[in-house]
Amino acid sequence: MRDRKSMSTMTERTLDEFIQLFSTRLEKVFSQYLDDIPSFDLKDAMEYTLYNGGKRIRPLLIYATGCIFDAPWENLDIPACSVELIHTYSLIHDDLPCMDNADLRRGKPTCHKVYGEGMAVLTGDALHTLAMQIISSHHAPLKADKRVQMMKVLSNACGPFGMAAGQALDITIMNDETISTDLLYDIYRLKTGALLSACVELGRLSSNDDDEFNQHALKEFGDCIGLAFQIQDDILDVETETELLGKPQNIDLKNNKITYPRLHGLIQAKEKVQALYQEALEAINYLGHKAQLLRELAGFMLQRKR
Amino acid sequence: MRDRKSMSTMTERTLDEFIQLFSTRLEKVFSQYLDDIPSFDLKDAMEYTLYNGGKRIRPLLIYATGCIFDAPWENLDIPACSVELIHTYSLIHDDLPCMDNADLRRGKPTCHKVYGEGMAVLTGDALHTLAMQIISSHHAPLKADKRVQMMKVLSNACGPFGMAAGQALDITIMNDETISTDLLYDIYRLKTGALLSACVELGRLSSNDDDEFNQHALKEFGDCIGLAFQIQDDILDVETETELLGKPQNIDLKNNKITYPRLHGLIQAKEKVQALYQEALEAINYLGHKAQLLRELAGFMLQRKR
Repeated sequence: MRDRKSMSTMTERTLDEFIQLFSTRLEKVFSQYLDDIPSFDLKDAMEYTLYNGGKRIRPLLIYATGCIFDAPWENLDIPACSVELIHTYSLIHDDLPCMDNADLRRGKPTCHKVYGEGMAVLTGDALHTLAMQIISSHHAPLKADKRVQMMKVLSNACGPFGMAAGQALDITIMNDETISTDLLYDIYRLKTGALLSACVELGRLSSNDDDEFNQHALKEFGDCIGLAFQIQDDILDVETETELLGKPQNIDLKNNKITYPRLHGLIQAKEKVQALYQEALEAINYLGHKAQLLRELAGFMLQRKR
Repeated sequence: MRDRKSMSTMTERTLDEFIQLFSTRLEKVFSQYLDDIPSFDLKDAMEYTLYNGGKRIRPLLIYATGCIFDAPWENLDIPACSVELIHTYSLIHDDLPCMDNADLRRGKPTCHKVYGEGMAVLTGDALHTLAMQIISSHHAPLKADKRVQMMKVLSNACGPFGMAAGQALDITIMNDETISTDLLYDIYRLKTGALLSACVELGRLSSNDDDEFNQHALKEFGDCIGLAFQIQDDILDVETETELLGKPQNIDLKNNKITYPRLHGLIQAKEKVQALYQEALEAINYLGHKAQLLRELAGFMLQRKR
């Protein structure tokens, strides 16, 4: 019955306790799905990439938003797992030699370095479909119309109108030195912001809240931290050494990618992250104490060193 | 209002008329989704691969099954588009150099030959998500619980418990000369049969039919033609020249793949296809005249020369 516990008492916990609790919970849900996969190699590669020390930022955003609206934990498990599966598939495909050509991810060899490129493509594909399978199948007191809404929000954020388009723009026009800041923002919103912003909406959708004001306020919060997160990522790529970063430092420079810090310098980039963070906090200020974990999580995301 | 026309009158049409009508219809639905994609290159690559003369066998199976149960055409458009998107994404990824390394598909250069490998990976990913987006978003008189059921059937057929696992087994153990016929069947069912069989179920789910006997009979039909289709594909790889086949002949031999014809010879392979076809027909014999298009479509699938 612990599963049915409302998240309202979560606001008494520290951010560290919250992260620990829900990261463990997420891994338990994953394990339910991985056992019966009929290809041993596929199962192994899926486990390798899902349990490799990721920060679980996207699912944690979902759980923290759900906390505000007292969403049942089992409901939150559904988008939390789906989004982490989508994020993991996208990292596997991004790391491929034909994309960013990265050998390291979270301090370990990337999927294609361990399992080969063909299996890495398939592992990404399998995680991608599993995300959709969990939304349609996972046992929880979540009605069909909510599942359909979640599928809509998630597919809009990660498909050809969101992340996939952002990635396509990333590999086709991000080497263009004449790129404008506004276009760069658009690409960042597509490739990174859309999925992060969707997390906040998915957390709310897991509850009974149907207040449009909440929806708009959370969207503004999500859009701000989504954009800030990508700029922070660019800063870390310049400032943090490979060993701490867990992935190759200066990969943007190596791939000749235009980034916000490259256009405006590191100082202005850091100021922009802080300004967006403040804007995000203001958007949800009215939510009071119940949104405290979400605020702290946003701070954690934007002050991270890896 | 033509869209709301019941499919019952379809049984008066010839198979050629049926194929022409619904292939055109499918392409019109696709075009609604492709126009607003924010990356020009991604949109272009998605169009290139979606409109390249594919036989549309999977969506046609859905429409033909829907015909039996008088499903509304707009309902059928949803799984028909989704399945063709999934099939197309899987072909793009299969053709990659790290998988089958095929330069030709349907007589034209494969996606990665035209757009590069990175864009081909992303194009597959975008089509994959769009399939899910259409199930959750496409306007039709299809209730949320039916959409969720469709998502469940489709993701089970194409994810780590279906097609993706079959592909993983294909690249990991299909070079093993000691492979048994039963294991080969299992792999064929996963990599090819599951999605074809799902089509028949998705056609029925688009209607109001809730008869378990129909569900089981159609599953048997789908399983038989799914397995037969892959064996027929193996036969064509041996017998049909590249020019007619539209993809490189003998690619299985080149990739040292074990196939049914390689284990049992071409004559036995052809007999197996015919036996499975007869078994499929028997399973749906009781459906009478209304299933005539589905029968003819199965015949077309298993007697094709490319």
